Amino acid sequence: MTGKVFLIGAGPGDPELMTMKAVRLLQSADVVVYDRLVSDEIVAMSPKDAKMIFVGKSSHHHPVPQEEINAILVREAKAGHNVARLKGGDPLIFGRGSEEAADLAAEGVKSEYVPGITAAQGAAAITGVPLTHRDLATGVEYVTGHRARDEMLDLDWKRLADPMTTLVVYMGVANIGQIAEGLIGEGMDPTTPVFAISRATTPDERRLVTSLEHVAQDAREAGLKPPTLFIIGQVVSLYESEQAEPERISAHG
Amino acid sequence: MTGKVFLIGAGPGDPELMTMKAVRLLQSADVVVYDRLVSDEIVAMSPKDAKMIFVGKSSHHHPVPQEEINAILVREAKAGHNVARLKGGDPLIFGRGSEEAADLAAEGVKSEYVPGITAAQGAAAITGVPLTHRDLATGVEYVTGHRARDEMLDLDWKRLADPMTTLVVYMGVANIGQIAEGLIGEGMDPTTPVFAISRATTPDERRLVTSLEHVAQDAREAGLKPPTLFIIGQVVSLYESEQAEPERISAHG
Repeated sequence: MTGKVFLIGAGPGDPELMTMKAVRLLQSADVVVYDRLVSDEIVAMSPKDAKMIFVGKSSHHHPVPQEEINAILVREAKAGHNVARLKGGDPLIFGRGSEEAADLAAEGVKSEYVPGITAAQGAAAITGVPLTHRDLATGVEYVTGHRARDEMLDLDWKRLADPMTTLVVYMGVANIGQIAEGLIGEGMDPTTPVFAISRATTPDERRLVTSLEHVAQDAREAGLKPPTLFIIGQVVSLYESEQAEPERISAHG
Repeated sequence: MTGKVFLIGAGPGDPELMTMKAVRLLQSADVVVYDRLVSDEIVAMSPKDAKMIFVGKSSHHHPVPQEEINAILVREAKAGHNVARLKGGDPLIFGRGSEEAADLAAEGVKSEYVPGITAAQGAAAITGVPLTHRDLATGVEYVTGHRARDEMLDLDWKRLADPMTTLVVYMGVANIGQIAEGLIGEGMDPTTPVFAISRATTPDERRLVTSLEHVAQDAREAGLKPPTLFIIGQVVSLYESEQAEPERISAHG
């Protein structure tokens, strides 16, 4: 009998920010497929006898191609296994979950999505920077700072340069200079505060508070590396650096 | 000793879509403050001996004013109680969590945010409509379809009418006609698919698939009421109405 594939949002990194459903399905999986955006602590919650398949890097130190990941999911499900496919954040926000589900459906394999807390939500909760605010941001927009398949970064700067919308840029480390220039070029205030955060909610978390005009240089000097999230907008003015670290429990204790 | 207030995202409605942290903090609370956006099943997970305070409606059938909610949180924390303040979705996305936290801080009361799955993420996971997609949507934007304090709905239609951005409209039932007209007026294709969903992931869930040009009439005829979410964009074309209901477990069983 064919197994089922659960496309699970593992959230921002802190195991306790997984949903109860994600944890239940992970802990009953026969096979766990995960990549480098899933934290070690979450991977460690897998059943002891589960088959673990890491797809973050192939033997040549490149990520395993999407086609190969899809083939692994199909193969394991057809072998009768229930598969937990863990993804950082949410599978349907920059997670390519729907592509994997479509491939599975084409092969007659059932799948189900489990939503996850996005890195932006994790960062907001831990820092006190709200994503919306009645006086500072009437909406929030998530965009990617890079394009797949070597396409040009073709963001509509005019559209994005809105002082009343919080802009969350995923995968933007390499292009943050171009992004900041584009926004300033379309009239966004160069002093607009920017918050950069890497691996929010994990022990490796790094934070940087800067401004649109200085973000490229500051991010370079700080040596920020992917995965880093940039939150751009007046809401960042509410950041309280002295905020106490929230309590955290160990998933293993 | 003053207690602490946990501003907890209760997610879209299904108790299993709460984070583990949210559940832990709810189940150890002395006082639970909740409104009508929190599902009955989640409220029922509160400790048996917790003091339950409903702030969804006052005795005059109006919502309890924000100032009064803040006063309740301060009073209970100062009485030495740990308070679980439950909010639908995420406290920092249209949840006014940062306003409550600011008021608490001004009174010397500590608070902590716990992120929650948004209604949009819950709807995406349950329906298979992704919020982003490499070919159909390079980003996703959340906006509100109403304004607080009786202000005019002043959305920037030109900005929002982007065929490559998924637009998620919260609290838009009353104004969806104006919203659709505004988007079409700025060049958005009138046949752009629209998905409306009320109380996603709960037993009261209702769904409607329509188009920008027909959404106002269809929503009216279907009698959709708040809270309803509108997802506007090409990603809605991936909706599979025949998708099996995902399995669900009871929070009480």
